[in-house]
Amino acid sequence: MNASFHPPARTLMGPGPSDVNPRILEALSRPTIGHLDPAFIQLMDEIKALLQYAFQTQNALTLPVSAPGSAGMEAVFVNLLERGDKAIVCVNGAFGGRMKENVERCGATAVIVAQEWGKAIDLNAVEDALKAHPDACMLAFVHAETSTGVRSDAQALAALAHRYDCLAVVDAVTSLGGIALEVDAWGIDAIYSGTQKCLSCIPGLSPVSFSERAVARIRGRQQRVQSWFLDMNLIMDYWGGSSRRSYHHTAPINPLYALHEALLCLREEGLENAWQRHANHHNALAAGLHAMGLPLIVDAGHRLPQLNAVGVPDGIDEAAVRAALLQQYDLEIGAGLGTLAGKIWRIGLMGYACNRRNVLQCLSALEAVLIQQGMALPQGAAVAAANARYQQG
Amino acid sequence: MNASFHPPARTLMGPGPSDVNPRILEALSRPTIGHLDPAFIQLMDEIKALLQYAFQTQNALTLPVSAPGSAGMEAVFVNLLERGDKAIVCVNGAFGGRMKENVERCGATAVIVAQEWGKAIDLNAVEDALKAHPDACMLAFVHAETSTGVRSDAQALAALAHRYDCLAVVDAVTSLGGIALEVDAWGIDAIYSGTQKCLSCIPGLSPVSFSERAVARIRGRQQRVQSWFLDMNLIMDYWGGSSRRSYHHTAPINPLYALHEALLCLREEGLENAWQRHANHHNALAAGLHAMGLPLIVDAGHRLPQLNAVGVPDGIDEAAVRAALLQQYDLEIGAGLGTLAGKIWRIGLMGYACNRRNVLQCLSALEAVLIQQGMALPQGAAVAAANARYQQG
Repeated sequence: MNASFHPPARTLMGPGPSDVNPRILEALSRPTIGHLDPAFIQLMDEIKALLQYAFQTQNALTLPVSAPGSAGMEAVFVNLLERGDKAIVCVNGAFGGRMKENVERCGATAVIVAQEWGKAIDLNAVEDALKAHPDACMLAFVHAETSTGVRSDAQALAALAHRYDCLAVVDAVTSLGGIALEVDAWGIDAIYSGTQKCLSCIPGLSPVSFSERAVARIRGRQQRVQSWFLDMNLIMDYWGGSSRRSYHHTAPINPLYALHEALLCLREEGLENAWQRHANHHNALAAGLHAMGLPLIVDAGHRLPQLNAVGVPDGIDEAAVRAALLQQYDLEIGAGLGTLAGKIWRIGLMGYACNRRNVLQCLSALEAVLIQQGMALPQGAAVAAANARYQQG
Repeated sequence: MNASFHPPARTLMGPGPSDVNPRILEALSRPTIGHLDPAFIQLMDEIKALLQYAFQTQNALTLPVSAPGSAGMEAVFVNLLERGDKAIVCVNGAFGGRMKENVERCGATAVIVAQEWGKAIDLNAVEDALKAHPDACMLAFVHAETSTGVRSDAQALAALAHRYDCLAVVDAVTSLGGIALEVDAWGIDAIYSGTQKCLSCIPGLSPVSFSERAVARIRGRQQRVQSWFLDMNLIMDYWGGSSRRSYHHTAPINPLYALHEALLCLREEGLENAWQRHANHHNALAAGLHAMGLPLIVDAGHRLPQLNAVGVPDGIDEAAVRAALLQQYDLEIGAGLGTLAGKIWRIGLMGYACNRRNVLQCLSALEAVLIQQGMALPQGAAVAAANARYQQG
């Protein structure tokens, strides 16, 4: 306890945090300035504009909440729901379940559209629920379920929400920067994300965005927002467009330097290029996993490139494999959550960590550890398959 | 917007953030690892132990909330209060007012003991309120009011709370590391602080600690905690002592590296030495301000060494002085808040920023700017007075 902490040099291919670009770590460590410094106010404006680009939105109320993605989720629900409201919540994984928790803690009722873990949200089931609950004011769903690696059709779900006069609320923690996401074109009313997934920034901030319709609802509330820290009526006065910023809480200055740099990296690459990169490396990883006979549990049409849920073969101790990868290769992959605990691994290919070196390292390390664990695998087949896939372009 | 952000090299002598030790910035920028990595779990244990030292407590539930001090405040109230509860809240500045907001947003009733801004909390008034409201379950107060520079008698207030069977809840955002604070010896039940004041870490985390009595109340709640993100029943399972840590939210990994380093710095110096250092440099600053005829608005017996509220002389434009200090000297001092806006400056001497170089720089820059603004001051008198005070030891 008397010594500085020097972390091991891991490769982060779990469900997040993902590897942070050294350029972002360097930005993080620049000298701290005050949260009302004119230079910092200018930085805030730039972060807002860069987030608008990342979310593909013109929403004025677009900013990073000063806490992790879970707080961004809570910010959306506590601002948009009042006691007695009703929200339809799609649950096809751990984070849909967390949405339900949030709705209920706001004193609202959550109508659950449950879906088997590992499957995309069923549009018909959602429409049935919207028809059955005309008093619902919100449809909430997870775009990219980090617990299962499933992509749901956010565009179609948002359109359904509007058809039944509900706000469309989207968890984009794992989707932002990794797969197509267009807040304005799809008509999303409120969205939150995290910084430690496909933005490859450090964990601890949660970008959010609210449509004009959502802002009108926040401004027209009957009850006060139950959280002072997350009350957008107050936060707007600090992050808002007015020249006179009023103090709300002390912003996390240095993590915002890092987020700014991460968003610059994304804009330099270009959103579409980043989406394509995630798809390409996912294809190579999938080819390598297939060569080892390891199944991806999600149907090909709904797989997230950035989060690959891999079935654990019979007779293999999933925790022992993860421990060996960490100890022998400094490689972190994730375990299953909830109903999938013990049954899957989660291999992330997020942001800066989504590159050819990591794909090949992961495949060769996983193959070696599985052979150690007694599986009969042809040595080198996984890497060869991935390389062959890369050559297809 | 296309370029990396390079902050100006400020000296931070406002109400926080304070200058961050470069050693802490370097720790901040070390490679990110996973929040369930065994190496990170060990770091969490070390942070807990170091926070127990800083707070002078054996409380098992001692940890940093993953968000700024305002969220730490909210964590204390949402966990300890249920709808219908009654809390006595002392308000002698902006942050007492924020406590009231938090109590009310929990659906509880806040009984206010109001005190003029700039004065310490009156023990007799508090005892009257405790007598008048035997159904109150909590007495909440600010130890070091950042908005005014006042120290209240936390030990006596906590004792009063216990005499009337109330939990003693303390805001120590600006006191931790700067003035004497002994959580166990004083019988404090719940306390929160910030990292960007006398710990000289970056803003964004909030150390909290709960006594066994407070934990029993949290575990015995009738209603769920209204915040999922701040629910200590869940956070205990991640930060708690069990070997099997369960995931709650993704911890802000790198800021926790920085907090660990900041707490190491504090322990290396020693708490008592840090308190004495703050007192010594405050004395020198006060001598210099006195030499310029600038009044400290708080009585000598209740002044915080780390936050000096200075009356703005008649005819001086307080904002113009701050702007000149920032532009000409890269020196940040703070403005007044609330009823003191426009009437005071707030000069911080916090943590790493509390040193002789900063005291002398601040005095000489302030003197020069006041002379520019038309005040007749003997050149060099402020620095000479401070140096004379230093020589007294």
